[in-house]
Amino acid sequence: MEKIGFIGLGIMGRPMAKNLIKAGYELKVYDLNKEAVADVAAAGAKACASIAETCEGSDVIITMVPNSPQVKAVVLEGDDAVINHAAAGTIVIDASSIAPLASKEVGEALAAKDIIFFDAPVSGGEPKAIDGTLSFMVGGPEEHFAKIYDILMVMGGSAVLVGEVGSGNTTKLANQIIVACNIAALGEALVLAKKAGVDPEKVFQAIRGGLAGSTVMEAKAPMMIGQNFKPGFRIDLHVKDLNNVAETAAALDMPVAFTDLALAALKELQADGCGSLDHSALVKISEKAADLTL
Amino acid sequence: MEKIGFIGLGIMGRPMAKNLIKAGYELKVYDLNKEAVADVAAAGAKACASIAETCEGSDVIITMVPNSPQVKAVVLEGDDAVINHAAAGTIVIDASSIAPLASKEVGEALAAKDIIFFDAPVSGGEPKAIDGTLSFMVGGPEEHFAKIYDILMVMGGSAVLVGEVGSGNTTKLANQIIVACNIAALGEALVLAKKAGVDPEKVFQAIRGGLAGSTVMEAKAPMMIGQNFKPGFRIDLHVKDLNNVAETAAALDMPVAFTDLALAALKELQADGCGSLDHSALVKISEKAADLTL
Repeated sequence: MEKIGFIGLGIMGRPMAKNLIKAGYELKVYDLNKEAVADVAAAGAKACASIAETCEGSDVIITMVPNSPQVKAVVLEGDDAVINHAAAGTIVIDASSIAPLASKEVGEALAAKDIIFFDAPVSGGEPKAIDGTLSFMVGGPEEHFAKIYDILMVMGGSAVLVGEVGSGNTTKLANQIIVACNIAALGEALVLAKKAGVDPEKVFQAIRGGLAGSTVMEAKAPMMIGQNFKPGFRIDLHVKDLNNVAETAAALDMPVAFTDLALAALKELQADGCGSLDHSALVKISEKAADLTL
Repeated sequence: MEKIGFIGLGIMGRPMAKNLIKAGYELKVYDLNKEAVADVAAAGAKACASIAETCEGSDVIITMVPNSPQVKAVVLEGDDAVINHAAAGTIVIDASSIAPLASKEVGEALAAKDIIFFDAPVSGGEPKAIDGTLSFMVGGPEEHFAKIYDILMVMGGSAVLVGEVGSGNTTKLANQIIVACNIAALGEALVLAKKAGVDPEKVFQAIRGGLAGSTVMEAKAPMMIGQNFKPGFRIDLHVKDLNNVAETAAALDMPVAFTDLALAALKELQADGCGSLDHSALVKISEKAADLTL
């Protein structure tokens, strides 16, 4: 069984690491947060004091950090970075959701040292990280995918190789565009219905079985109608992802009008102090426009 | 069994009327298009030469015409209008998709003559009209709903009473907002992915099972990827519906930013000569922006 180094023990990384331990993998773990390291060590991992120590003897290194700058800092930058301590032939899997161009940059730098790289962002959030049922969207070299598949399937319910390095995060961005716009449109529709005097719960029941039906509607309409915005997936994180969409689209010279509108709405919610609410709180933009709550 | 007058034998009305005939209802039918009248008469209806003749002896009158002005023309305006020929106690069911405010106007005018009115727009399009599996979104008086339920269920697979007169069309508008925005976001996401070098089919497979999954994605992603824009539901009709959203929102003094963006995209497609294509052709807006086709 591969020896795994795991860097980044936040809300997602911590349960992912624990599932690997439960599955019998030998884990070395590192995070700036010592409490998180101690917690995962208590579950059976070896606590490390540096990235260098985490890399030592690891066949596979998994990173799970907030965004592109943190991935670059951990993997590429500074004396303690992965690139300076992982042996040739090591496989690095970055499960963070970051900009695809950053993934490519990391992959190219690692390739120059014969280190294999996959970007493998997830969807599913904390509950599926705990259950080990995340969905991995994976970009990287097909000839090495079989080597990481079993590891991913300990943490996830599915792992789909979609293309070269960067493709995983491109797929994640596509996912986040659709989710944000669908939530925003659902909010606009339900609020308009209520403003016109129709019970939003009845609207939900009448349309959920038709072409308007979606996983977003099933998950988020009850939250909107119940005014329950406990995350789930936070506005702050969705802003991060759509900022990565905007950056990617700009680099490709492609206008993304729906993303821009959704991102503006999400940023308005941040400015209103709602950044830590579930993204279903996008309904608040329409509620404010209509001067009512669902 | 109720005697039914059916006015409006277009793409939707014709199969709806035929399903009522098959179910054993005695039907009188009328349309400006004599060929359509002859076709439905051949299936067993009595052909009428006027609205007045269609109303004579009918317990229930069903209208299925393009938009608000046509409903008002048929039901309220002129010597031959329904309001001048339907007996007190008659039930009028308007299955057209129109502005909720127009439904209310029609309902109030009919109520003054003791004629009962329901707005009952449908979703499902021609295939479900033929199969008798339309979804009816119904607004009108609860105490009379039971009298029309069996009739609706001949033409439909579901019929949900959502509120007072106008509520059916408000619900339909909510449905159309969500569908349009979800299609547009799907197009933007898949085109961005392809622009970034990822196979849109693989993106679809990787994300369909997650939070981005929807009935729209299942129905429209393959059409977009296959560049097959055979309707289905035409751009022209979606423009009509979102114009009704815009009109309704303006009357309620509520901004609807996502609807506005989707409507602008749909109108751009009309200007490009794509009005008769399926609404999945919304992807063309993103394709134009990215200078590629899926």
